[in-house]
Amino acid sequence: MSRGPTISTAAGRYFLSDRIRDEVNFRSTAQAEGGAPPPVQKPVAANSRIVTLPPPQECAIPPCDLRAAIARRESRRRFTGEPLSPAELSFLLWATQGVRCELHQAAVLRTVPSAGCRHPFETYLAVLNVAEHTPGIYRYLPLDHALVVEREPDNLAARVVAATRGQQFAGRAAATFFWTVLPERTEWRYAEASYKVIALDAGHVCQNLYLACEAIGAGTCAIAAYDQSLSDDLLGVDSTEEFTVYIAPVGKVGGCSG
Amino acid sequence: MSRGPTISTAAGRYFLSDRIRDEVNFRSTAQAEGGAPPPVQKPVAANSRIVTLPPPQECAIPPCDLRAAIARRESRRRFTGEPLSPAELSFLLWATQGVRCELHQAAVLRTVPSAGCRHPFETYLAVLNVAEHTPGIYRYLPLDHALVVEREPDNLAARVVAATRGQQFAGRAAATFFWTVLPERTEWRYAEASYKVIALDAGHVCQNLYLACEAIGAGTCAIAAYDQSLSDDLLGVDSTEEFTVYIAPVGKVGGCSG
Repeated sequence: MSRGPTISTAAGRYFLSDRIRDEVNFRSTAQAEGGAPPPVQKPVAANSRIVTLPPPQECAIPPCDLRAAIARRESRRRFTGEPLSPAELSFLLWATQGVRCELHQAAVLRTVPSAGCRHPFETYLAVLNVAEHTPGIYRYLPLDHALVVEREPDNLAARVVAATRGQQFAGRAAATFFWTVLPERTEWRYAEASYKVIALDAGHVCQNLYLACEAIGAGTCAIAAYDQSLSDDLLGVDSTEEFTVYIAPVGKVGGCSG
Repeated sequence: MSRGPTISTAAGRYFLSDRIRDEVNFRSTAQAEGGAPPPVQKPVAANSRIVTLPPPQECAIPPCDLRAAIARRESRRRFTGEPLSPAELSFLLWATQGVRCELHQAAVLRTVPSAGCRHPFETYLAVLNVAEHTPGIYRYLPLDHALVVEREPDNLAARVVAATRGQQFAGRAAATFFWTVLPERTEWRYAEASYKVIALDAGHVCQNLYLACEAIGAGTCAIAAYDQSLSDDLLGVDSTEEFTVYIAPVGKVGGCSG
């Protein structure tokens, strides 16, 4: 007899509640025990190729009224095939994970909130069609507002499609955002109460991507149904200490009418 | 010996992955078996008092550039004590859960995305300081863009503070948003693969609240650390089929400089 799925309905509902907070001993978290916080940005391997991005404040982004962006936002899976410009990519990265203010080495304020200011994500891009960028897997470095080239796999579009369980539009995107989570960043402070807030945080990030896309005549459709192993393999992450948590292919769809 | 918290580190990390999708039998979901989808909006009790809201398109909201709103957004816990206007409240409700388009009785498109278009949330407001509104617990009716008065508890501010584990700023808000989840709406389609996507969805909703606040000189600070029982009791929900999932107190903080 099958045990049924690993997450039961009862366990899943429990997970969405905040009852876990009554169970966690916050005096024995890594933070409470004096452990150093994990780095806010994953280190860059030696001899990596760094690609600079135009500073966000210098990117000419068309004015776009917030209310119009919210009204117009929809799930967009049909892309024109026009490339994203480096300025547009810079704007999207800033809007989703950009640093507003560095408090100290272990805490930076970003354009999105994060429970306990833990910001547990890294942003990878499968770049397929961005002007001046060769195709490949890049990672965003928020502290530097730059990209690092992580890998340049063959058949990138096909691998992106496979990682998203055959969703063809992901392979036609100009750039597909893959957010990974490094759970330890949040566990350091919240221990077993980390997981729901990490998922909430990821939703915050992706909503900014939806809206920022509206300002540049681009669109996205978030993907929560993906192949965990194929996605993690594509990014080159270990699936335990760092793994894919959410995906969003971005492409041009037309002008901003806002 | 204590068993430790209900959610282990391994279980929590599993929850954030998408491995559950490999385990769920999508041929035996309620949807696949032909079950009717749950209503998109919780029914209103007989003889309830309905409070109309100004239509979103008629609300005079100051222009606010999207990029400025993203740049300016921060966690705001200090409120001026000025009331929200009905138009401002209408705008915030529209931005977070408003209906853009009714596809059919069981599926509506909203101002935020939701996995499988399930939109599993209800929005409750603890109204403390909204012009023309008596204090109380209201619920938003997205299909009608109206409010229903759910209850008018004594000592509302103190109960909001208790429900948020003593976070005083929640009791000084003009209106505190309490999102509940009715998990069955998403389970109908995704069964045990519902829970992470529900949390992602809630993050999307709350990010729109942060940004919409910036347009009206208001601010918020999302609360994921709350008392599940006290919050559910305050709203009058059963804690099983419907329970609190995220909270966001909103108050005025100053003018929009966008």
